[in-house]
Amino acid sequence: MTMLGVLRPGHCQLRVLDLEESVNFYTKIFGLVETGRDAAGRVYFKCHDERDHHSFIIREADRAGMDFYAFKVRDKATLEQLDADLRAYGVATERIPAGELLETGERVRFRIPTGHTMELYAEKTAVGDGLGYVNPDVIIEDRKGISPLRLDHWQIHGADLDASRDLFTKVLGFSLVEKILGEDGQTDMAVWLSCSTKAHDIAFVRDERNDTLHHASFLLETWEQVLRAADLMGKYRVSIDNGPLRHGITRGTTIYSFDPSGNRLETFCGGYHFYPDMQPYTWTWDELGSAIFYHTRALNERFLTVVT
Amino acid sequence: MTMLGVLRPGHCQLRVLDLEESVNFYTKIFGLVETGRDAAGRVYFKCHDERDHHSFIIREADRAGMDFYAFKVRDKATLEQLDADLRAYGVATERIPAGELLETGERVRFRIPTGHTMELYAEKTAVGDGLGYVNPDVIIEDRKGISPLRLDHWQIHGADLDASRDLFTKVLGFSLVEKILGEDGQTDMAVWLSCSTKAHDIAFVRDERNDTLHHASFLLETWEQVLRAADLMGKYRVSIDNGPLRHGITRGTTIYSFDPSGNRLETFCGGYHFYPDMQPYTWTWDELGSAIFYHTRALNERFLTVVT
Amino acid sequence: MTMLGVLRPGHCQLRVLDLEESVNFYTKIFGLVETGRDAAGRVYFKCHDERDHHSFIIREADRAGMDFYAFKVRDKATLEQLDADLRAYGVATERIPAGELLETGERVRFRIPTGHTMELYAEKTAVGDGLGYVNPDVIIEDRKGISPLRLDHWQIHGADLDASRDLFTKVLGFSLVEKILGEDGQTDMAVWLSCSTKAHDIAFVRDERNDTLHHASFLLETWEQVLRAADLMGKYRVSIDNGPLRHGITRGTTIYSFDPSGNRLETFCGGYHFYPDMQPYTWTWDELGSAIFYHTRALNERFLTVVT
Amino acid sequence: MTMLGVLRPGHCQLRVLDLEESVNFYTKIFGLVETGRDAAGRVYFKCHDERDHHSFIIREADRAGMDFYAFKVRDKATLEQLDADLRAYGVATERIPAGELLETGERVRFRIPTGHTMELYAEKTAVGDGLGYVNPDVIIEDRKGISPLRLDHWQIHGADLDASRDLFTKVLGFSLVEKILGEDGQTDMAVWLSCSTKAHDIAFVRDERNDTLHHASFLLETWEQVLRAADLMGKYRVSIDNGPLRHGITRGTTIYSFDPSGNRLETFCGGYHFYPDMQPYTWTWDELGSAIFYHTRALNERFLTVVT
Repeated sequence: MTMLGVLRPGHCQLRVLDLEESVNFYTKIFGLVETGRDAAGRVYFKCHDERDHHSFIIREADRAGMDFYAFKVRDKATLEQLDADLRAYGVATERIPAGELLETGERVRFRIPTGHTMELYAEKTAVGDGLGYVNPDVIIEDRKGISPLRLDHWQIHGADLDASRDLFTKVLGFSLVEKILGEDGQTDMAVWLSCSTKAHDIAFVRDERNDTLHHASFLLETWEQVLRAADLMGKYRVSIDNGPLRHGITRGTTIYSFDPSGNRLETFCGGYHFYPDMQPYTWTWDELGSAIFYHTRALNERFLTVVT
Repeated sequence: MTMLGVLRPGHCQLRVLDLEESVNFYTKIFGLVETGRDAAGRVYFKCHDERDHHSFIIREADRAGMDFYAFKVRDKATLEQLDADLRAYGVATERIPAGELLETGERVRFRIPTGHTMELYAEKTAVGDGLGYVNPDVIIEDRKGISPLRLDHWQIHGADLDASRDLFTKVLGFSLVEKILGEDGQTDMAVWLSCSTKAHDIAFVRDERNDTLHHASFLLETWEQVLRAADLMGKYRVSIDNGPLRHGITRGTTIYSFDPSGNRLETFCGGYHFYPDMQPYTWTWDELGSAIFYHTRALNERFLTVVT
Repeated sequence: MTMLGVLRPGHCQLRVLDLEESVNFYTKIFGLVETGRDAAGRVYFKCHDERDHHSFIIREADRAGMDFYAFKVRDKATLEQLDADLRAYGVATERIPAGELLETGERVRFRIPTGHTMELYAEKTAVGDGLGYVNPDVIIEDRKGISPLRLDHWQIHGADLDASRDLFTKVLGFSLVEKILGEDGQTDMAVWLSCSTKAHDIAFVRDERNDTLHHASFLLETWEQVLRAADLMGKYRVSIDNGPLRHGITRGTTIYSFDPSGNRLETFCGGYHFYPDMQPYTWTWDELGSAIFYHTRALNERFLTVVT
Repeated sequence: MTMLGVLRPGHCQLRVLDLEESVNFYTKIFGLVETGRDAAGRVYFKCHDERDHHSFIIREADRAGMDFYAFKVRDKATLEQLDADLRAYGVATERIPAGELLETGERVRFRIPTGHTMELYAEKTAVGDGLGYVNPDVIIEDRKGISPLRLDHWQIHGADLDASRDLFTKVLGFSLVEKILGEDGQTDMAVWLSCSTKAHDIAFVRDERNDTLHHASFLLETWEQVLRAADLMGKYRVSIDNGPLRHGITRGTTIYSFDPSGNRLETFCGGYHFYPDMQPYTWTWDELGSAIFYHTRALNERFLTVVT
């Protein structure tokens, strides 16, 4: 009971143009912890406050973007049930054997209507956050770089938003938290979905470009840490798309920036507590600016058009 | 799926010695919003960022303390299921009819082993937070006093901690997040339990004084708001038990203070994100100080002994 | 000894296009306190944490901009000495009689080489901050709107920056804190000057448009208050030029916005402690972006071109 | 003109019981930067954001306490003038030759009426903060431990407070900012004095124990950094006297803790902007609690009695 089914964003695999440059960026500047490399040349990272072996994987490729993303589910029984539910709903699933990703159990993989490859899994080795489980300290000292706490969510784009939204809400148990309506006042142009008490665990935007990533988002603890992230981006000449700023949607504060390959990353803080008995917020098309960038109400072209 | 069963702390009813003095305290200084009074002389309040009709109720009595506390569950079917589960577990339940509390549906009431009266309910009128559901603003201006965001959790005391803990974890679906072991290294002296991604929704402390309240806790958004709360407590001569400070347990920041009747209130901020696949933290008896008051490692007598 | 001569920015008079709309903006949204109106139709304001009668004056006119700005000096003897020093330096001064501005003593007025009208004065009625002088509270509750603490500084533009800089440093006792060099590596394109331990009390930018104002700046207490200011600007649809962000110069955090008449206002926080024995920082032309907008290193056209 | 005379707290020399244990504490935990050791066995430190060679010196001795403290003055001419002023006022001064302290010019040393040895000096080698003077970054990464920005002030105790106060205000140019009156409503029991726009650069408390130190205070940038300081004190089991909390006096936030030898250290943030034209605040004896510890209004015995 209570937190059942899907727990949280578990991992994603991004493509980068230069592996070692990216490892340097993600460890020294973005402040993730490298936790492993595999025979396929992939590099694994976790955030400082995460306990599972990894939440972020990169591989070298000739174009940026996201290969797949995954949610962790409560246990193996849940995994089997969700696989059955997906197949009953008409979704073709396949099994990726345990160990194909380092320290990770069997994964159920499937394609969602917006074209993205998604996975569910129940098992990943807990390596801890370094504080131990007995009389832990409250702070992890000597965190390097921006050092987010956790992988937070993704915003992904595709044409058939309606079908992906329905898959998440009807089969995977997510709740609709907020949405932006199109000019017709009826079409969902973007939706924010939660499987927890977070204001979002994933967001979809209607976009002809299927299987694209707008951003992977990482959690920071305070607005002061958002400032520190921006200061480090300034110091290391990281390309900033926008921010620090506040979203109307979720009320979160944020900076959007790009990794050296052009993948957009969000460093996010806040957002209200959501519960599934809450009525969703609706944003109308004429208030799109406030919905996204609450302070200036002005969207920049790059934010609206660049995906990977 | 996902957030099922028990959602969150829903309301509690506290006894106060002087009703109007308390209404003044809870509205002007503590910054709750009065939302109604009933024929029984009870006064209802909500926090600014809560949407349901109320989360906090007071009534005049000749001694302080808590009459009952309640969790909201996902829906009526869940309420029926949990009632059946409780009875199957051997817990006697009764039904309080809809409307007995203002704007609140039927409640399932029962006594837990530590002597406290607990309720579950599925329905309460959503009155909103004043921002509306279309193109909402991100801030509620002109919040008065300390103005917590939400009712967060309770810490309650009683002798048979083990049985109450088991009821919550085996029947109500809560997860054990942290615990303090006694000098014997085996007995749970205190446990922190979650039904969400919060680090705790309720805490139990082993104490011969059954059916007692250590504190009701309210959520603040930032450490700077914790400071503002303390400043207002200083200005209005509110009795402070301890704080501002950091807990070792949950990593939250906090102030403990007393209402005019001597009920202890917590103004709490933070706490890590908990998921039910996480291994609980254990604190040993010799580190009790760090567990509770991480900075000074020193517990004050009042904090250890005063309950209502 | 010690803090002698010029104390701080004392007041400025700005032109607005619609007086009542501006009064509404400056009190309800920007959060100044109206303290008086005079026979000339001028409206006077102070910030909540200022004790003198006013620091900001507006009058209705057909174009925006600043009529004059003033620094308060330590005492009347200092005023006489500085007047004598100015005249000895070749600056023509005039005396504005006490009372010409409400609650303000005699002012020494003169034109500086960049064309701006500047004043010095020693006396203004202290009306206090409402906390009293005996056992004061630490917070002023119920501050409305953005509610800056103090008038902080101005950035003004004109062609003969060198001569205005010299007047301030050689006659008025200011120290050079930071400067931006032009492409030739020699010309001062902008200078930041301090008469205190603040990182700046006034800034000059080389610009053919004499007697122009880039912005009047007001102090906020924390980065969280900068966020709140931005949230209120979002809510009330205030035109934001840029921010929240960090400056390379002074290390301060900031938002630039416009009043309804197009006068640019800064809401500023931070900046390091400056002492006159410190070597000034120099910024080279190729690092202009980092100097001004440290995070993005990108200057927007409006910031570079709009003055009033 | 403007910032003349005395600039700021320049350095102090404290006695510690175990030199290497103290060096470890002051570098690893308190987060100062060791900048040198001299033939007399003294160890020199600076704070990260200070540019002069050192601000804090320790030497091994058999009891804790402060040997002397010093203010830096504007230049050598100021030093000569202040020496002459002191002698004219009846204070015996002596000259400590340049180089007696590492990288420090000639010092004027004298005893103040409360028994403390005080120094003035005009010259100390600027070693910088590591950011350079051309296109500096805004943040110093990899600061260790609590890492205060600057030495901020001292609170020192002695019997003839009146005479020390007069020496500072009549000869050295300090301003009275706040004071606590005794039960008689007339006697100054404590005074806060400023030579800058800080709310205090030194404080005196009337106490029969001449030549004693209550605390040396170091500046932190934000309330969040105060929390981090407390977290590190908790982690490293530093003895905390009180805090985090807010002062009524100066409105600053703070933690008081002890170094391994029992010298009390303050980690301080905030305080309002003071100017010498401001009327001082007065605290009456019955509000002593609010004056010192604004939140709880309760002074602890240790804070009131322990000096070194």
